[in-house]
Amino acid sequence: MNKKVRIGLIGAGRIGQLHGENLVRFVPNAELVAIADPFFNDTTYAWASSLGVENCYKSAEAIFANPSIDAVFICSATDTHADYIIQAAEAGKHIFCEKPIHYDVAVICEALAAVEKAGVKLQVGFVRRFDYNHKMVHDTVASGKLGAPHIVKVTSRDPEQPPMSYVEGSGGLFMDMMIHDFDMVRYLSRSEVTEVTAYGDVLIDDQFKNYDDVDTAIVMLKFANGALGVIDNSRRAGYGYDQRTEVHCAGGCVQVANVLDNTATISTPDSVICAKPQWFFLERYNQAFIAEAQAFATAILDDTETPVQGIDGLMPVLIAKAAKRSLDEGRSVKISEIEGYKSSSYVTL
Amino acid sequence: MNKKVRIGLIGAGRIGQLHGENLVRFVPNAELVAIADPFFNDTTYAWASSLGVENCYKSAEAIFANPSIDAVFICSATDTHADYIIQAAEAGKHIFCEKPIHYDVAVICEALAAVEKAGVKLQVGFVRRFDYNHKMVHDTVASGKLGAPHIVKVTSRDPEQPPMSYVEGSGGLFMDMMIHDFDMVRYLSRSEVTEVTAYGDVLIDDQFKNYDDVDTAIVMLKFANGALGVIDNSRRAGYGYDQRTEVHCAGGCVQVANVLDNTATISTPDSVICAKPQWFFLERYNQAFIAEAQAFATAILDDTETPVQGIDGLMPVLIAKAAKRSLDEGRSVKISEIEGYKSSSYVTL
Amino acid sequence: MNKKVRIGLIGAGRIGQLHGENLVRFVPNAELVAIADPFFNDTTYAWASSLGVENCYKSAEAIFANPSIDAVFICSATDTHADYIIQAAEAGKHIFCEKPIHYDVAVICEALAAVEKAGVKLQVGFVRRFDYNHKMVHDTVASGKLGAPHIVKVTSRDPEQPPMSYVEGSGGLFMDMMIHDFDMVRYLSRSEVTEVTAYGDVLIDDQFKNYDDVDTAIVMLKFANGALGVIDNSRRAGYGYDQRTEVHCAGGCVQVANVLDNTATISTPDSVICAKPQWFFLERYNQAFIAEAQAFATAILDDTETPVQGIDGLMPVLIAKAAKRSLDEGRSVKISEIEGYKSSSYVTL
Amino acid sequence: MNKKVRIGLIGAGRIGQLHGENLVRFVPNAELVAIADPFFNDTTYAWASSLGVENCYKSAEAIFANPSIDAVFICSATDTHADYIIQAAEAGKHIFCEKPIHYDVAVICEALAAVEKAGVKLQVGFVRRFDYNHKMVHDTVASGKLGAPHIVKVTSRDPEQPPMSYVEGSGGLFMDMMIHDFDMVRYLSRSEVTEVTAYGDVLIDDQFKNYDDVDTAIVMLKFANGALGVIDNSRRAGYGYDQRTEVHCAGGCVQVANVLDNTATISTPDSVICAKPQWFFLERYNQAFIAEAQAFATAILDDTETPVQGIDGLMPVLIAKAAKRSLDEGRSVKISEIEGYKSSSYVTL
Repeated sequence: MNKKVRIGLIGAGRIGQLHGENLVRFVPNAELVAIADPFFNDTTYAWASSLGVENCYKSAEAIFANPSIDAVFICSATDTHADYIIQAAEAGKHIFCEKPIHYDVAVICEALAAVEKAGVKLQVGFVRRFDYNHKMVHDTVASGKLGAPHIVKVTSRDPEQPPMSYVEGSGGLFMDMMIHDFDMVRYLSRSEVTEVTAYGDVLIDDQFKNYDDVDTAIVMLKFANGALGVIDNSRRAGYGYDQRTEVHCAGGCVQVANVLDNTATISTPDSVICAKPQWFFLERYNQAFIAEAQAFATAILDDTETPVQGIDGLMPVLIAKAAKRSLDEGRSVKISEIEGYKSSSYVTL
Repeated sequence: MNKKVRIGLIGAGRIGQLHGENLVRFVPNAELVAIADPFFNDTTYAWASSLGVENCYKSAEAIFANPSIDAVFICSATDTHADYIIQAAEAGKHIFCEKPIHYDVAVICEALAAVEKAGVKLQVGFVRRFDYNHKMVHDTVASGKLGAPHIVKVTSRDPEQPPMSYVEGSGGLFMDMMIHDFDMVRYLSRSEVTEVTAYGDVLIDDQFKNYDDVDTAIVMLKFANGALGVIDNSRRAGYGYDQRTEVHCAGGCVQVANVLDNTATISTPDSVICAKPQWFFLERYNQAFIAEAQAFATAILDDTETPVQGIDGLMPVLIAKAAKRSLDEGRSVKISEIEGYKSSSYVTL
Repeated sequence: MNKKVRIGLIGAGRIGQLHGENLVRFVPNAELVAIADPFFNDTTYAWASSLGVENCYKSAEAIFANPSIDAVFICSATDTHADYIIQAAEAGKHIFCEKPIHYDVAVICEALAAVEKAGVKLQVGFVRRFDYNHKMVHDTVASGKLGAPHIVKVTSRDPEQPPMSYVEGSGGLFMDMMIHDFDMVRYLSRSEVTEVTAYGDVLIDDQFKNYDDVDTAIVMLKFANGALGVIDNSRRAGYGYDQRTEVHCAGGCVQVANVLDNTATISTPDSVICAKPQWFFLERYNQAFIAEAQAFATAILDDTETPVQGIDGLMPVLIAKAAKRSLDEGRSVKISEIEGYKSSSYVTL
Repeated sequence: MNKKVRIGLIGAGRIGQLHGENLVRFVPNAELVAIADPFFNDTTYAWASSLGVENCYKSAEAIFANPSIDAVFICSATDTHADYIIQAAEAGKHIFCEKPIHYDVAVICEALAAVEKAGVKLQVGFVRRFDYNHKMVHDTVASGKLGAPHIVKVTSRDPEQPPMSYVEGSGGLFMDMMIHDFDMVRYLSRSEVTEVTAYGDVLIDDQFKNYDDVDTAIVMLKFANGALGVIDNSRRAGYGYDQRTEVHCAGGCVQVANVLDNTATISTPDSVICAKPQWFFLERYNQAFIAEAQAFATAILDDTETPVQGIDGLMPVLIAKAAKRSLDEGRSVKISEIEGYKSSSYVTL
């Protein structure tokens, strides 16, 4: 292994550019050496050049074929993730892959099998685990000083709804938005979800109905360790990105508040005004995106386990499918009911 | 009507004494003129005397028979509430009755019918509606400035579990503890609950299992106006009385934090320490108990509707029954499934 | 001594009525038996009657002459305080006296001498010491766990300026308003002020200039124990009653925030709004007025020292005079420069 | 002018390295092209190389002599600042200079004259002006919506005392530490300080006495616009970096709280624990260091005024000298008393 992890970036869209810049600026033990994007144009080339990256390709093949590259960041369209994982694994590259791996459980399992067979490392981009606040909740629970978790609560509301063009291909609220929260409750509870019940409706914009989707939802969860949980989602908070987590344990409660734009209070005879929550994920999870890239590079160099692995890419998809089924059928749904659950050797419930 | 409402108090236990003292100290347009309690003893007499009340009876009959008494406060054991309501109504007394009216829907309806027939006023003791914080949430929603409610959230955790002797006769977590929250979500959403799904378990103390009860529960709710809701309860928070409410609406969110013992922050190299939430309901809802008694007296003197009426005594019982059935049967339960729902003319869903 | 302290109230104005009602409602070991006020009229009689007080006099003499009265509350005009203290002491009554005792140091000392000679108890009405928040700061410092005090800070701003008719006879900002803060810094630092430097100006309303007064001031203080302090005052905060205290010690800092009208936060795309500080002293120090009356009664019944004694009535007046001199002469002023300081055996600096 | 500002860095110590890295990572319109440091060694060369800087010199002369360099960052020892400013100005370079310019007013004025004569831009490193929180206070005051400032308050406490070797050459608390706050009150009040009174003492560590220094101080200030101010400083807060500012104006108050390590609250039967303030200036002002470098580059490229100019480097030194004289002489001191004040054409009070 080189002293620096040599990385090839696949996909130079918004999230790919974010990762690329973070790798260059903030991950001293990584080196971004190549970028592949089918839509490379003058602007993208200029951006790559500004990062000092000279190897720009229109196809990811060139990255997989380059023996000097240790690892890849897969930031392309969701439906390409699994294929790229398999190709990267076969080429012996370690893999960071944006979430979700795929919407289809069988395809995910196939990708995970390829990773396992190749013996490379895989990290899935559930970035919120690296947020210093949610991590504080996790670490407090994990320390054991509060005892066993009893109630796990996550509030997750976007500041504004996405365009309908995005909604159409998003996989729906549970697969696109609440999937982060399904990962979060697994992370905070340190257990697996066994059952969910979903309530959801279209309360914000009737256009969501055109895509068999909801814009507001609450999901209750049961965990293998006995804890109970609840997640609430809204596609439009309006006041900013509302991201709060709380775990009540046998011996007490740990919770985190939103991160605000500033700490100012303005008091007048009319009102007392405080700052709003940071607007959206680029602001709120800016630090977390850096930390996850650092963790990936470090796991490779130290040859340790990545902090978010294959099973962590699979389980939230199973939970999201169970939640959608619960909503559609008006009943509680066990995760074990979801197709592919039993066939997968990755699930160890 | 007298210029002051002349009140007879039935039941001189803890909650009765609380109401008695509040009436004397803080309700200038009320006069406490008689107290009835089958267990009157020297201590109780001394207490009554300290309030300047000379008419002390072992039976409530004497209060019903006294034509100079305008209204009664029913603070006796739960299983006597409905009978006393009927007797008071027949005697033409206005009625303040502690919650719940009864565990049996038919009995509640009988009592409400007696009240309706007599044309007297009835106020049920859901005291939290009078808390200045929860009222702020309600008033903000009711003002309409945030638009329609989308998500209603209530956290309600007791500081410590009650003795098992209490649990035995309590009616269970849903009927005894979460019933307050069922009232609260109706109050905050300004709508009726149509369906619930309950998750619950014994996580704190195995003795709860002896009474077919749970000590930790989360309940999701659907409302007639389209809103979704969730309540979480724990019989033992440990750190104090955790009482938070939040309503997220189309145009924004209103929420209230706990009331703390003080506003101090102590910062040292070891830690930054803040105050705990006020310990329990006597501390947290002290102001609310006064306000509900004042509101009752005012409603009588002004001949206006009481702020918590018969239907408000009935609906939370129906919801509690639906929640228990949901837990027992592992499925979502519509309120309309509960026996007595349809037969009752009081339900206007 | 009776089992209850029998109290005569002198002065039935706003503050007298407040104390009278608190004694009746909240001080079970006190009994309000007589009220004296030269301006007694039908309204005042009705008020006294509502409290169950039958002995109403136009002159305080009747109270001093009544051997069944144990103690007096002196709530009359400031210029009568010292005389009444002397008369009460000579009549053997314990004394609660509103602040300040007098504007003249010699007169204060004369009154204190009478109290000492008679061996009665005296408590001065520095009510903020009984506020549960400031008391928390005091108790934390007094516990010693933070070590020696280094920096004592008090912010004290009234919500709105008083009428000029009040300003005229107020004794000026230092004697009327900051005198509370001079008491507070003594209470929190647990030491004596030795020197002050005052900056002040008329920034709110030019009419203050007509009375040789200021409406905005900052005063720095030195304490005998080495601590340094600062107080800032404004006659018009506008947003409510701004009452914050902070002590930074060798081992850390303790501070208290304002008490707000409620704990609600309303978040919208426009703004995040919190509650304002409680409006003024009747709201903020409501609990403290009760606690100081309870403490007085208890000190008498238990024959212990009152918590705010004669020296506590004298020292803030000396500090206020030093602050005014500092402002007038544009220099730092030692408390020992103030006339009467040395002649007084009560000052033990 | 180039499209990017070409910058030479003078001084590669801790603060120089911070600026160098920020320029490379976060100031896209700047290019770090040369570094000069008399103590260049292998480690420093490696660091420079990691930033892609090839021109490394042991003397600043090489930077001044390089015509392709537009601007310099002076991050060397304080006693070299003024000389380098003069040399840079004569070479036609724009100048960013760390604070303070010098301890001697005459020397500062000489440097400012050189800058003025050369017509180059100068920005002084008062980094806190770029903190998003203090800037929020400034912007709110500057907006005029709260009216004229009445009371300006700054709390500034370091987490731990510096080593005595640092104290010895620091210029003392007023010149080394409170100088930031003197700049801050000018920034927030948008006016000039006209008079100060300083209280200070050695309360933390007796060794400060060896250097005629104090470790704890409070300074009151008068401003030309009528406002009053106060600053409190401690060399050892213990609990973190305590950095709070507050301006109370005619129409209300704006204040900022500390930035905490996280937003977590941990509630147990023992205590409720919150996070500590960020530890020190590298954490708290990390964002501000970036913003000041960006502002400097932008001012050059846009040919606008720098946000912190020569006068802003001079005035805090005058105020610090007045504060020290006030402490030494036990009296209030006007800024106009300080030598060099009148002779300087830069002071426009």
